[in-house]
Amino acid sequence: MKGYRELTKEELIKERAELNERYEKCKALNLTLDMTRGKPSPVQLDLSNDIYDTLKDGFKTAKNEDTRNYGIAPGIEEIRAIFADILGTDKDNLFMGNSSSLNQMYDAMMRSMVFGEVDSPKPWAQVEGRKWLCPAPGYDRHFRVTETLGFELIAVPMNEDGPDMDVVEGLVKDEKVKGIWCVPCYSNPDGIVYSEEVCERLAKMETAASDFRIYWDNAYVVHHLYEDRNTWGKLPDMLSLCESFGHANRVYEFASSSKITFAGGGISCFATNKDNLTWAKKFLNTQAICTNKVNQLAHSRFLPDKEAVYAHMMKHAAILRPKFEACFNVLEEELGFAKSLWKWTTPNGGYFVSFYAFPGTATKIVSMCKDAGVALTPAGASYPYGKDPADSNIRLAPSFPVVEDIEKAVSILAICAKITAVDKLLEDR
Amino acid sequence: MKGYRELTKEELIKERAELNERYEKCKALNLTLDMTRGKPSPVQLDLSNDIYDTLKDGFKTAKNEDTRNYGIAPGIEEIRAIFADILGTDKDNLFMGNSSSLNQMYDAMMRSMVFGEVDSPKPWAQVEGRKWLCPAPGYDRHFRVTETLGFELIAVPMNEDGPDMDVVEGLVKDEKVKGIWCVPCYSNPDGIVYSEEVCERLAKMETAASDFRIYWDNAYVVHHLYEDRNTWGKLPDMLSLCESFGHANRVYEFASSSKITFAGGGISCFATNKDNLTWAKKFLNTQAICTNKVNQLAHSRFLPDKEAVYAHMMKHAAILRPKFEACFNVLEEELGFAKSLWKWTTPNGGYFVSFYAFPGTATKIVSMCKDAGVALTPAGASYPYGKDPADSNIRLAPSFPVVEDIEKAVSILAICAKITAVDKLLEDR
Repeated sequence: MKGYRELTKEELIKERAELNERYEKCKALNLTLDMTRGKPSPVQLDLSNDIYDTLKDGFKTAKNEDTRNYGIAPGIEEIRAIFADILGTDKDNLFMGNSSSLNQMYDAMMRSMVFGEVDSPKPWAQVEGRKWLCPAPGYDRHFRVTETLGFELIAVPMNEDGPDMDVVEGLVKDEKVKGIWCVPCYSNPDGIVYSEEVCERLAKMETAASDFRIYWDNAYVVHHLYEDRNTWGKLPDMLSLCESFGHANRVYEFASSSKITFAGGGISCFATNKDNLTWAKKFLNTQAICTNKVNQLAHSRFLPDKEAVYAHMMKHAAILRPKFEACFNVLEEELGFAKSLWKWTTPNGGYFVSFYAFPGTATKIVSMCKDAGVALTPAGASYPYGKDPADSNIRLAPSFPVVEDIEKAVSILAICAKITAVDKLLEDR
Repeated sequence: MKGYRELTKEELIKERAELNERYEKCKALNLTLDMTRGKPSPVQLDLSNDIYDTLKDGFKTAKNEDTRNYGIAPGIEEIRAIFADILGTDKDNLFMGNSSSLNQMYDAMMRSMVFGEVDSPKPWAQVEGRKWLCPAPGYDRHFRVTETLGFELIAVPMNEDGPDMDVVEGLVKDEKVKGIWCVPCYSNPDGIVYSEEVCERLAKMETAASDFRIYWDNAYVVHHLYEDRNTWGKLPDMLSLCESFGHANRVYEFASSSKITFAGGGISCFATNKDNLTWAKKFLNTQAICTNKVNQLAHSRFLPDKEAVYAHMMKHAAILRPKFEACFNVLEEELGFAKSLWKWTTPNGGYFVSFYAFPGTATKIVSMCKDAGVALTPAGASYPYGKDPADSNIRLAPSFPVVEDIEKAVSILAICAKITAVDKLLEDR
């Protein structure tokens, strides 16, 4: 099949008519399909159904501490050891949270707002015109935190190996710029793994703000799609990398088990250097006596070390892989003939496929899909303020629906992508 | 036995010598006893060991929602219904947290600091010289939250039916006074239940601050010591009481299951009116996707209604009662002969016995007890800034140790109370 750009006006009109027929047929099916959020599917959640059976062995830690009672504010040692091993850092750098790492990010930023960081000239709430860097497309809930806290969101373009560091290095010369959101491994939504060079430049760069922070959300650190470990995203330990460049306070790293065990019912943690942690603990120890250690113990018994976590994640991968591949295949089949018009990512892990439609069509595509019973994340959702300047990116979340539904949904997406592209091309004829 | 005040100098000196002999004998026992914190004992925690067995029936709510996945930010309906019934309010006024109600208090106050309340002229962080009322003695961790957040802590005397309302009504004429801590049922540490009159005056009083808030920490709402329901502390529903006086936004109520199931491993909630909740949700929905609903489901199955909670609490009471009574008995036996010198509370619930030593001796008593191997909460801990102006109050926490240890520890406390009182009396001879 010829690419659309090579078609005559008449050919395009004919193609448009055929596509419209297909679209109307899809609409007539009265489908209800949802590709909006990165939720694990019930089969994935079933993998962890036995997690609380581990408590039959009692509620004591290896050190004979009773997890059913108050105490051990940073979390039990065994779970910190496992997460530290996964993140490539030391267990003493970790502080466990409850079930949400987003909550830990929000809390960390609220501390900065009210108390400032250990190296802040003043609390961030007192910094008029404070700004935050948002590699885009990125995670909408990240952007919402900084927007809610009154930061101006500065979009940074994403390259294939992470945020455009030339742009970042320029922006951080502004002392109002207090930090950056990063999902370094299988970024949301592009599935990009940051290159070593990007990590190094982030760690090394001089920032005008003395209290600049990287929010290193390692949400998908073990969320690989393939058995072959050569395909696994690998990252340097950002804590020691920052330290090696004299910026030891620069990074807060976050992780959770939401997409390992139960979504919103697992455990979370953050890791940071000693100065930051000592500072944070002043407030964390005021905020609560401790987090849910019974859940930490259950997790540490259910997945007792890094290799156990890897093995468990390969069970997830076996469920997710066909869903991602269904996405890739339908996109290739329907849209592969004209790759200059659109593109999509084929990540090795994470929870999303990022589709870049013909510029100026994403909003229309999402709306047409909705009319055909396919719910997609709103166009622009992955950009600061929900505005994609190119109106091109659509985040696809294939984890929750079954393969058959994904095929239907992505087919409809592809038809709509073609219709809207043809319409755009016809505008110029 | 004569009261000490009636003894001659010589008799006091003789008594002093006898007491000293007893004290030295106690020291020689090399005891290690801990009466510092209100922690449930292992036997109490055992009562809930089977809680996660309830998950054998699956992870779905009555409405067929999957608790293992994201969603249902306010918490599942069944658990909100149970807590609402206990608190005497509507389930739609409730928002569930994770394991710590203290954390919810801290979060609520951080929101006020950064964003203000729905009826605030400006965020509280911008209110120079902001103040908070602290009925004292009270809960040290409450006071620490407001101190950390830069409030001036204003002590309010406690009467036998709650905070001295004449004082409170005077203080709230200052618009810098933004709120008050209350533990209305079995207050920490006195075990006082607020009278209806006190509740009404709190709800009714005019405050200079438009955004004055009562932090109504109903930590011990079902924590009764006796089967006889006539002894149970009863409180009006503070939400509707405040509303009835035209101050619907005035109260945040908090509760948790920490001393029902697992301490720091249970679930928590807050209740407030619609305006406050709508305002809070703007930020709560930015902070996290949801709390741990699997734990909520387990709790709702393990203790499916208010009567089940009451029945469960009577099992706790059966364990706690002998411990409290051991306290009362030893105190009566050792110190009952001279009740003008000291006093102690005999609460019908909660987690503490409050001992008021002869003025000016509490610090010395705690230090002497420490030397004899008995750890007590530091004198003054229950007062703002850790300073008891009378140096009299000592908080006793009898829940964790076994009865035999409580008897030993309280005997030593009583001996030290007598020694220090005799010393004080001798100063005036």
